[in-house]
Amino acid sequence: MREGFKDDLDRLDERLAGMGDAAAAAMRSATRALLTADLALAEQVIGADSDLDGQRAECEEEAYSLLALQAPVAGDLRGVLAVVYCAEKIERMGDLAAHIASTARRSHPERTVPADLEPVFAELGDVTARMADRLTQFIRGGGVEGGYAELSRSDETVDALHARVLATITSANWTHGQRTAVAATLLTRFYERFADQTVSVAKRLEFAATGALPGPR
Amino acid sequence: MREGFKDDLDRLDERLAGMGDAAAAAMRSATRALLTADLALAEQVIGADSDLDGQRAECEEEAYSLLALQAPVAGDLRGVLAVVYCAEKIERMGDLAAHIASTARRSHPERTVPADLEPVFAELGDVTARMADRLTQFIRGGGVEGGYAELSRSDETVDALHARVLATITSANWTHGQRTAVAATLLTRFYERFADQTVSVAKRLEFAATGALPGPR
Repeated sequence: MREGFKDDLDRLDERLAGMGDAAAAAMRSATRALLTADLALAEQVIGADSDLDGQRAECEEEAYSLLALQAPVAGDLRGVLAVVYCAEKIERMGDLAAHIASTARRSHPERTVPADLEPVFAELGDVTARMADRLTQFIRGGGVEGGYAELSRSDETVDALHARVLATITSANWTHGQRTAVAATLLTRFYERFADQTVSVAKRLEFAATGALPGPR
Repeated sequence: MREGFKDDLDRLDERLAGMGDAAAAAMRSATRALLTADLALAEQVIGADSDLDGQRAECEEEAYSLLALQAPVAGDLRGVLAVVYCAEKIERMGDLAAHIASTARRSHPERTVPADLEPVFAELGDVTARMADRLTQFIRGGGVEGGYAELSRSDETVDALHARVLATITSANWTHGQRTAVAATLLTRFYERFADQTVSVAKRLEFAATGALPGPR
């Protein structure tokens, strides 16, 4: 029974890691679609999002039946509940990537992001996708201790990039009008929230592994 | 044992309802602080948010110990897990109200919202706070069936108000500059996301009560 449970939990973790992979890929594709005004790629990200929603539901059902059938306690209970928690956050990461793709689709064939903001959005896309990569590494290979601190540092980078976008939009030199200002404001918020979710997931994984919450956030 | 569990679950539900009350109150105060540039009230909302964070953590700990000690199944298991899920969403509602208050604080002593947008933000504050009220009624008194459909309808109202704010900001008549445009864009997003959380909570409460998810969202 304990061996069976360990296998079940490993399978659940692998499912969660697969969701993390999908969220990272969605973020990379969404950013490319945004910066190259690639309509087909944007549609692909938007279409793939419902897969991630379905995977979240499956993860949760599997976790529920593990709880009902095996009634795990202590670390095992934390492990199962962590999967439920993290699956929901990773689903949200997918939603945010899809929002970025939708924004690109709405502007098409125009570019959503003016040329002077392209580098900072490229960096936002790169940093946040790498944060998602780290999650799947934590889930698969362990090394989760210190993961929360590491992603909190990456999150500070994202917050600084976010602040730079807002500073550009509100500067006297902004010549791209209100519509672009609104789109860029929402876009940078989507990246920032994506990063926040990865930090929440890292924190929860660390809690599940160690039993201690790694400081307030 | 079953009687004891029922009492425990009732106590957990009452804790959750109390969190809903706090989120509704936070939204009302945040909107008033925003529309009257009331710095003291804004500070109060921001300060109170950590209470809600603490209540969420307590809710979750209590739910964990119920799961570990009582190993509930079926409807009881769904009930406990729903509390964990909903507590996290309600904590997020508090965060969003605090973001609104922070935005008001940042603008002080200026008003953040120009006069022509005041009525729509007042309505956003009113509708979203009433959505939070409905959650606590569902949690306390039942009547949760149909709650998801009801809050989805309110959410459509919020989406329409959100669209109206964005249309105003992007219209040719906008004379309030970029900084106000960015603040108003983020503000309306905070209200919209607050409403989304209430819909997620209503959906989960209905699932916990009936065992069937009330349609996709």
